[in-house]
Amino acid sequence: MQLTYDSFLPQFKTPLGAVLQNTTLHFTLNVQTPGLLKTVALCIAHDGQWDAEQALPMTATSDGDYTVTFAPAQAGLYFYYFRVQTTHDTTFYGCVDGGYGGEGEQYARREQVQMYQLTVMQAKETLPQWYREGVAYQIFVDRFYNGNPDGHVNAPKPNSFIYGRMTDTPMYIRNQHQEILRWDFFGGNLRGIEAKLPYLKKLGVTVLYLTPIFQATSNHRYDTGDFLKIDPVLGELSDFDHLVTAIHDAGMHLILDGVFNHVGVDSRYFNRSGHYDTVGAAQARTSPYYPWFTFINYPTEYDSWWGITDLPTVDKENQAYRDFIFGQPSSVINYWTERGVDGWRLDVADELPDDFIMGIRHALDQFDDKVLIGEVWEDASHKLAYGQRRHYLEGGGLQAVMNYPLRRLIIHVLTGTLAPVDWWRELMTLKENYPQTTFRYNFNNIGSHDTPRILTMLQEDMSRLQLAVSMLLTLPGVPCLYYGDEAKMTGGKDPDNRAFYPWASADQAQIHYVQKWTHWRQNHPWLNTAAMAPFYLADYGIGYVYWQDGQTVLVVINVTNMNHVIAAADWHLAVVPPELASAVQQRLNGQTLSGTQIQLIENFT
Amino acid sequence: MQLTYDSFLPQFKTPLGAVLQNTTLHFTLNVQTPGLLKTVALCIAHDGQWDAEQALPMTATSDGDYTVTFAPAQAGLYFYYFRVQTTHDTTFYGCVDGGYGGEGEQYARREQVQMYQLTVMQAKETLPQWYREGVAYQIFVDRFYNGNPDGHVNAPKPNSFIYGRMTDTPMYIRNQHQEILRWDFFGGNLRGIEAKLPYLKKLGVTVLYLTPIFQATSNHRYDTGDFLKIDPVLGELSDFDHLVTAIHDAGMHLILDGVFNHVGVDSRYFNRSGHYDTVGAAQARTSPYYPWFTFINYPTEYDSWWGITDLPTVDKENQAYRDFIFGQPSSVINYWTERGVDGWRLDVADELPDDFIMGIRHALDQFDDKVLIGEVWEDASHKLAYGQRRHYLEGGGLQAVMNYPLRRLIIHVLTGTLAPVDWWRELMTLKENYPQTTFRYNFNNIGSHDTPRILTMLQEDMSRLQLAVSMLLTLPGVPCLYYGDEAKMTGGKDPDNRAFYPWASADQAQIHYVQKWTHWRQNHPWLNTAAMAPFYLADYGIGYVYWQDGQTVLVVINVTNMNHVIAAADWHLAVVPPELASAVQQRLNGQTLSGTQIQLIENFT
Repeated sequence: MQLTYDSFLPQFKTPLGAVLQNTTLHFTLNVQTPGLLKTVALCIAHDGQWDAEQALPMTATSDGDYTVTFAPAQAGLYFYYFRVQTTHDTTFYGCVDGGYGGEGEQYARREQVQMYQLTVMQAKETLPQWYREGVAYQIFVDRFYNGNPDGHVNAPKPNSFIYGRMTDTPMYIRNQHQEILRWDFFGGNLRGIEAKLPYLKKLGVTVLYLTPIFQATSNHRYDTGDFLKIDPVLGELSDFDHLVTAIHDAGMHLILDGVFNHVGVDSRYFNRSGHYDTVGAAQARTSPYYPWFTFINYPTEYDSWWGITDLPTVDKENQAYRDFIFGQPSSVINYWTERGVDGWRLDVADELPDDFIMGIRHALDQFDDKVLIGEVWEDASHKLAYGQRRHYLEGGGLQAVMNYPLRRLIIHVLTGTLAPVDWWRELMTLKENYPQTTFRYNFNNIGSHDTPRILTMLQEDMSRLQLAVSMLLTLPGVPCLYYGDEAKMTGGKDPDNRAFYPWASADQAQIHYVQKWTHWRQNHPWLNTAAMAPFYLADYGIGYVYWQDGQTVLVVINVTNMNHVIAAADWHLAVVPPELASAVQQRLNGQTLSGTQIQLIENFT
Repeated sequence: MQLTYDSFLPQFKTPLGAVLQNTTLHFTLNVQTPGLLKTVALCIAHDGQWDAEQALPMTATSDGDYTVTFAPAQAGLYFYYFRVQTTHDTTFYGCVDGGYGGEGEQYARREQVQMYQLTVMQAKETLPQWYREGVAYQIFVDRFYNGNPDGHVNAPKPNSFIYGRMTDTPMYIRNQHQEILRWDFFGGNLRGIEAKLPYLKKLGVTVLYLTPIFQATSNHRYDTGDFLKIDPVLGELSDFDHLVTAIHDAGMHLILDGVFNHVGVDSRYFNRSGHYDTVGAAQARTSPYYPWFTFINYPTEYDSWWGITDLPTVDKENQAYRDFIFGQPSSVINYWTERGVDGWRLDVADELPDDFIMGIRHALDQFDDKVLIGEVWEDASHKLAYGQRRHYLEGGGLQAVMNYPLRRLIIHVLTGTLAPVDWWRELMTLKENYPQTTFRYNFNNIGSHDTPRILTMLQEDMSRLQLAVSMLLTLPGVPCLYYGDEAKMTGGKDPDNRAFYPWASADQAQIHYVQKWTHWRQNHPWLNTAAMAPFYLADYGIGYVYWQDGQTVLVVINVTNMNHVIAAADWHLAVVPPELASAVQQRLNGQTLSGTQIQLIENFT
């Protein structure tokens, strides 16, 4: 028996990709069999509701095609496969192992079948233009620039260390149990960012994403001490206001890091060591913050993030906490958004209850043109965390997520650990699974404070670094550069990826290269609404086309070190519309793509 | 049989204590026995030359006294005991177990006898007046004061840490193998010392002893990198010259720390990591420094100080090294001494060859009024190190040593772990064993960078802290205060004893207390040449008298917490001349000594 289905192609499924609730979908399965068919069915169920799986009979149309329509009534995920029964046996058809979309394969038994994912949205998201057309830049604030003319560090914390030189290698100061003994600071601060706005503007940056800036104990500040105070090491509230004004005056926008899942053990709220003048939850059961936390054995044992006792988890169901974070006029979200913050990135978004995220979103929606992004490491469209499917992307929650899967695709295809065909299939799967606005406006990166730096990931291969930058700046999504990657900084995992920006020795040629691409991106705002289709070339090339209103862009990349003459047989343009596909071939057949070359061709049709 | 001898009393031995070579000594042993005596002999041998032990027959004089004279022909140590043979048996008389002088005891067998020590000098030392009458102050330079008006740290070293606040608790940054990963600095510097000279002068300090100041990797600088360069963290050569001038202008003197036993692994001489532009011994066998070191397996295994591979030991027999340190006009000793250094403290002096020390002394003797002090932790008069008896105190070597045994006596008697009688006996033994000038001008301390702080040793008992300070300032020897002890700093062993001087919160009352005693000391320069004798009072009191040319000083201390009425039977004044002893008793009998009270009475006769 020969079954054919391809979730990426309109002859098999319309509409493609994610759909709004109640949209009618048309599925077509082609069945070629010498046997006698009994039934052909689309088997589909809402996420987890396997008991209510429906087997929708498909109707023969022509040449072995069987079709059926289905309109998902619920938002969330549906999973589906096909079942073909003959008089002799039953065959199943699902997606390939790994859960990728596109062409699938046949399975002999129901329990073996890998199912296709269908993402169903409650509502279509809109995102502000500044974000959609933005080029972002992530700053790990302690490591960027110290704006004090004499270089002194603002208000060092008690029992902390300052690096002797800006060129020092970052390190953790731990005891033998790997616990942090002292926190280490370079002394980057808010005035430092302000001082470097001209640099960033020239680099083509329009959006700044800052890792946390509220008072905390550590240098990364994911252990919030006080949500309503700028960390004195970074400056005063007036420095923050000044920076916000300067950012906006420069035509730029600001995204802050919102860390609401847990707080620092020495926070105003938990206050284990009594550093704050409040009565913290760890100090008395009568503390107003006591109900925020879940104690197993008061006060020493409590829920904490991944068992890290420095980070007590807050009970996000607690109404007082919700009110404090987003549910009242003086909430944390309101306080800072009113001071000019343009967007928030939610730390460990997949560990926050969906309605907590929606509450934040609701608060933000009272302002104009704000954006809410979530930290998720995997394909966020089907993220399960703590046994719960996450619904933050179905409308009214997150508008984008940090696109680590795209980072993986870029790095792996450039290092040869992912074949072009797999790169194509995985990218297409992201495109299929994510709501269209999410895929288009995802917060892309090729490195962050939580990953080794891109140049290190690419084994310090400069030409591949340039390819990675070019891909980040030309693929769908909002590109976010990690500070210093443009200066050719290297560094493995944390803390090596958090060295101080090498102002005295930054690679100017690389900065110009990045600048070239950011400017190109900004000169092509239409890309953000255009159609896009990726393709690949045998085992050496990848690429994508954009088209809209007669405008086209073609990107082709040779990911190998060898030169390749493009032959007609190399092309895999399945998801590219036929007329564009032939234009691409006509333009490039017979040409030589040098090793690690990127070609960008505009209006190739 | 009843034998009586007491090495502390002139009726048994003259002269008392150490003597010059060829001095004729008179020994008297009293023998009361019902048996028939065959021989009474003084058995004496030069250090280690037991084969050449002489048994000198003693002659009966009166009332059972037997005497003999002996003139030691060699400098160094002699050890002696007495042998009394009757017709029935043989009895031996040596000192008590532990090797203390004074009254001894009888032993049945030769091999059991503990021997008395007789110290024989080649020459009597002289010491400069500024040192003899000085009150010293030890500064761990990184931890004293930063003289830069804006508080910046001079030239931080690559990959070093600066403490965030001056009040931070010092710590070592180590890996799990206890190796130092980074060095930590507060940033005290030479200009800082200069800025605090008025404070020190007011405190009564006349001599500064600085821990090492030459370029090195660590914060303590005992790992010298370049003997001819001021560590840039501390300042420039000009800062040093300026400080020396300011010290001398203030009527003060300067002692530097000479660390000549080993160097830093990253020194100009060994240069393992190539930080210096020289070719170091670890880099090539053709290095001019190669012969300085002893390689077991070139270049990775080499002799190092106590196996600490960061500190390669230098071969002090190497002539080029000797020339470099002291043996040529441009030597290290000459270079710095010409710039105004008044004295040197030799690190691990007991691990340096005697003739190396004598070479340094010879170099210093070409200048006027210099002093050479050695670091030795035990009674330096009989120190054995690496199986070698050390001869640095017999003349022409060290003029004084760091008097850690005296520190121990002070602390132990004040904490009740040493009974007054033992305090007296041990102090008398030091007085007996050391050359008189050494005992008088030893470099006394009650704490240093290598010990827990005095206040911590005394369990933070403030009244005992005051007693310890008083004893340091009134006992024989040159008192050396450890920076910050006067400010009531606490701190256990290294690095807790090396916190930054608490300029903002120093205890002013304690500073005034210290000042009172330094001024008293300076107003009594005659003490430094006076005769002195300690005594004790039952199990609660200790004291000492000084006398010279009709002037007297009496110090009495109740080391307990209880009040004691002094009774006639309490006194143990054996080594005090009879007329002074009765004056003391007359003055104090019947008086109440309050708990932890010190009484100082001048001209009590």
